[in-house]
Amino acid sequence: MQDLHGVFPYLVSPIGPDGEVLETVLARLVEHLVAAGVHGLTPLGSTGEFAYLNAAQRRRIIEVVVEAAAGRVPVVAGVAATTTSEAVRQAREAEAIGADGILAILEAYFPVPEAGVVAYFTAVADAVGRPVVLYTNPQFQRSDLSLPALEALSRHPRIGYVKDASTNTGRLLSIMDRTEGRMRVFAASAHIPAAVMLIGGVGWMAGPACAIPRQSVRLYELCRAGDWGAAMALQRRLWRINELFARHALAACIKGALEIQGFAVGAPLPPQPALSAEGRREVEAALAGVEGLEMHAPHA
Amino acid sequence: MQDLHGVFPYLVSPIGPDGEVLETVLARLVEHLVAAGVHGLTPLGSTGEFAYLNAAQRRRIIEVVVEAAAGRVPVVAGVAATTTSEAVRQAREAEAIGADGILAILEAYFPVPEAGVVAYFTAVADAVGRPVVLYTNPQFQRSDLSLPALEALSRHPRIGYVKDASTNTGRLLSIMDRTEGRMRVFAASAHIPAAVMLIGGVGWMAGPACAIPRQSVRLYELCRAGDWGAAMALQRRLWRINELFARHALAACIKGALEIQGFAVGAPLPPQPALSAEGRREVEAALAGVEGLEMHAPHA
Amino acid sequence: MQDLHGVFPYLVSPIGPDGEVLETVLARLVEHLVAAGVHGLTPLGSTGEFAYLNAAQRRRIIEVVVEAAAGRVPVVAGVAATTTSEAVRQAREAEAIGADGILAILEAYFPVPEAGVVAYFTAVADAVGRPVVLYTNPQFQRSDLSLPALEALSRHPRIGYVKDASTNTGRLLSIMDRTEGRMRVFAASAHIPAAVMLIGGVGWMAGPACAIPRQSVRLYELCRAGDWGAAMALQRRLWRINELFARHALAACIKGALEIQGFAVGAPLPPQPALSAEGRREVEAALAGVEGLEMHAPHA
Amino acid sequence: MQDLHGVFPYLVSPIGPDGEVLETVLARLVEHLVAAGVHGLTPLGSTGEFAYLNAAQRRRIIEVVVEAAAGRVPVVAGVAATTTSEAVRQAREAEAIGADGILAILEAYFPVPEAGVVAYFTAVADAVGRPVVLYTNPQFQRSDLSLPALEALSRHPRIGYVKDASTNTGRLLSIMDRTEGRMRVFAASAHIPAAVMLIGGVGWMAGPACAIPRQSVRLYELCRAGDWGAAMALQRRLWRINELFARHALAACIKGALEIQGFAVGAPLPPQPALSAEGRREVEAALAGVEGLEMHAPHA
Repeated sequence: MQDLHGVFPYLVSPIGPDGEVLETVLARLVEHLVAAGVHGLTPLGSTGEFAYLNAAQRRRIIEVVVEAAAGRVPVVAGVAATTTSEAVRQAREAEAIGADGILAILEAYFPVPEAGVVAYFTAVADAVGRPVVLYTNPQFQRSDLSLPALEALSRHPRIGYVKDASTNTGRLLSIMDRTEGRMRVFAASAHIPAAVMLIGGVGWMAGPACAIPRQSVRLYELCRAGDWGAAMALQRRLWRINELFARHALAACIKGALEIQGFAVGAPLPPQPALSAEGRREVEAALAGVEGLEMHAPHA
Repeated sequence: MQDLHGVFPYLVSPIGPDGEVLETVLARLVEHLVAAGVHGLTPLGSTGEFAYLNAAQRRRIIEVVVEAAAGRVPVVAGVAATTTSEAVRQAREAEAIGADGILAILEAYFPVPEAGVVAYFTAVADAVGRPVVLYTNPQFQRSDLSLPALEALSRHPRIGYVKDASTNTGRLLSIMDRTEGRMRVFAASAHIPAAVMLIGGVGWMAGPACAIPRQSVRLYELCRAGDWGAAMALQRRLWRINELFARHALAACIKGALEIQGFAVGAPLPPQPALSAEGRREVEAALAGVEGLEMHAPHA
Repeated sequence: MQDLHGVFPYLVSPIGPDGEVLETVLARLVEHLVAAGVHGLTPLGSTGEFAYLNAAQRRRIIEVVVEAAAGRVPVVAGVAATTTSEAVRQAREAEAIGADGILAILEAYFPVPEAGVVAYFTAVADAVGRPVVLYTNPQFQRSDLSLPALEALSRHPRIGYVKDASTNTGRLLSIMDRTEGRMRVFAASAHIPAAVMLIGGVGWMAGPACAIPRQSVRLYELCRAGDWGAAMALQRRLWRINELFARHALAACIKGALEIQGFAVGAPLPPQPALSAEGRREVEAALAGVEGLEMHAPHA
Repeated sequence: MQDLHGVFPYLVSPIGPDGEVLETVLARLVEHLVAAGVHGLTPLGSTGEFAYLNAAQRRRIIEVVVEAAAGRVPVVAGVAATTTSEAVRQAREAEAIGADGILAILEAYFPVPEAGVVAYFTAVADAVGRPVVLYTNPQFQRSDLSLPALEALSRHPRIGYVKDASTNTGRLLSIMDRTEGRMRVFAASAHIPAAVMLIGGVGWMAGPACAIPRQSVRLYELCRAGDWGAAMALQRRLWRINELFARHALAACIKGALEIQGFAVGAPLPPQPALSAEGRREVEAALAGVEGLEMHAPHA
């Protein structure tokens, strides 16, 4: 089973006016991120607006990303459904396309008892031969994975990771402790990456890494080297980006930041709002404060 | 524009093991409800598990219900999406199939600002030539419609109804007052129907009416006649059914109640749990206390 | 045990700049409300800012109200504490002063398990020889009383009433049903009084009745007479007052409404804000729409 | 202005059956903690059940702690009220008794707008000549201090610290960044102390430090020395204690842990529950896993 670690940008999903995937834009973004040194790519995470795309759009996005990555870094594709059968279908499809791992998300309208949650994730992991990352976000989902549920799931041979998008950093240490390290932890944008690395995390999967990939990789390297002083000095500057992205709608904000850098990724799908003019100014100011950011000439 | 009022059962969605719509079962249920005197039918409401069905299943369910109703009562079909474009597509499809009205639902993963919510519902109403019922459920959705938003939407020529699934009955009176009657109100299973009728409601759209249609119609008639004493005497007995349906998962409970009465509608789609053995006993006991309930011999 | 029913205004607590109870103002308000025909008085409810007063202020308020009521209507005094021992002390004190009933409130900082909640209310009821009204407000308190807990408490010889300040009117019907009428229900300002009377309530305890006592009594009489048409016509006009009082801070709003009517009750205790200028204009407009409201010349 | 930093145990409040402060027990606990090397003491924090004590009990507890500490470590006393005037009174009283700092807490029944929150804390800081630590706990309080409010308050000459009891560690970094270091941050038991020290915290104020003072001090020293490897090794073992204390009611748990170690501090005030038999076994097991814990023979 492939070892996953490091900086995995949550890719945005560039969609055209008629619902078509903007393939060239997406492939160019992948190329840019791989060149910046990221350790993997995650299409169809929350920043990727998985909840706003239909089956055909989701499939095409994974295809484009897998093709553009061309095996240089692992692609961990988001799978999200309300029913077990649809999640299994998506997971098999992603594997057939060539995804190297699955980010498994449970959507829900009614609350689901924990036995159902465990059954859902188990069915997804049973359906594929790739490592599975559990995604849990108590803010936007209706279910959270309890520690006992995570412990049970950590014994599945293909469930080895969790990306926890709560803001509760202590919970991450509890997960590591409770699963005796079987469940490796990726931070989300709501956690301080350096703090999560200190307590034993293996990296982060997050939207901001799409906008500041090179700096994110540098931060990861400082943490891995145990150079905590330098890591925190860089972390403090980068944290302002995370704060900004928490203040505005996530997808709008990352898409806006990429537009500023020359990637014509467009706006989120309506009725989600585009980044406001004020938001755009704030993002521009934040990016201006980040050292070593490259701007690209936009082209189709 | 057709006038909608009275008892509209929220239909369950009977789905077979391979995801196929159980058409015969659904048509038979429609026949039974129309015979019981209900004033309309609502496929693809929350009890109808709209959030758990794919596009083909949703389409087929509307087709079966419209065909079985055969114009005897209006069919108000649920339309639910996260994007405006998908909601518009569904609404047009439902109208083309022959639905008499649209129950418009906004699903969301990220919160949507009110301007986006209003734009979404307006786009749905613009897309069709049928009356639109707004559905709002603060418990399971991420957005609620404020009074100013409801007032603005009430001025649309096709938006004339709201079904509010909060438990806050006072809010219904505020909606009627604020929109000066332009927005007519259907109660949901969390409100006491007789109380909502007293304050000026026009009926209810709810799952329990699927299980006790004849009694629900009787309650409606007593309220319309202003016979509040008799209405409350009946209401008190029927309220236990609503309480039960609030205690167990809604779709599981209504599907279980219909199975008990001889309709082979099956269980909710996994990972939603089926009605537990204890839940089934409670539903059986509650139904036993309802006067005049018919049991049907199950047949395919 | 005295029978409690009808309109019980939640009295405000007029406090001077040095923390002294404004006794003349409070006595005059009591006189005014009794003259308006209210059926009882409730000092130290939420509108009475119980959570903002010290032990001496609470005691003095009960004394003034009991003395001014002079036995003409029952006084149901609020008792609120975080510890059982302090609640028992307050309840005994209120009874010794001459209160005719106790409105029992549980304050909490940490959540309390249900057994503790039941023990708390039982201890209060054991300590006095007067009827006890349970007060439950899930919005501002940390505990809610479940139906089983209410059923258990309803078997206490002195616990015969509940005032439920949720917005969930269906819950009131469930309480009446579950306790087979042993627990009589008073509405709060978040419920529609006429609707609660329809389903079997015995009256309401609420701040707005302080500002519109005569109209509240008239509404109660129409409901008791079963004249639901006239009741709803009046209810619709009065509901705007409740809506307003829900929009602004409750104590500020009622105190402001009384100031407008000539009662120098002052503002809520800081850091609670006084009614804003805009709020005052809204209250003035709402009161202007109420028929038969008397204005009093303010005097010390 | 005295510099506050390091490990400040949140003291429990030992109260006898008649409401009397168990002075000998409390003084002995203080002696034990000072001997263990803690950097300060915090009576009347949340673990100290401030919300459950009356004015006389609160006063006596500060007196006993100040006297027992005898100037060896700073005493930061909790001040908590719903009204500004009562908070100012308590703060002046604590200073007069000899407290070295104030932990300022805002209790609320109704929500308070931010201007009121800022005015409350400013009034407390204006009333004393000692450093003030703001306490914010979004879980149990009704208000949270926004970043702009914290920035405004950080400019007060006596407000230099915040103890944030959310679980959101990223917020702490945002506070430090936003106030440019003027607001120094103490962790609470919901944060991982080592992670908070990494990002720039100055220590922690928390109940668990009452039960494992020597180990807490050791962890602090490792963090200060920048020995992050050893710090995390110790942190991982100690985190289980924090987890346990989050699982059971906080005051019950710390009081139970101290009883196990020979301090007759009793149980929390009813209706708060005492530590259950199962909880006691879990605490015993957790403490058994902590190296170097001393047990004391209980004596009056």
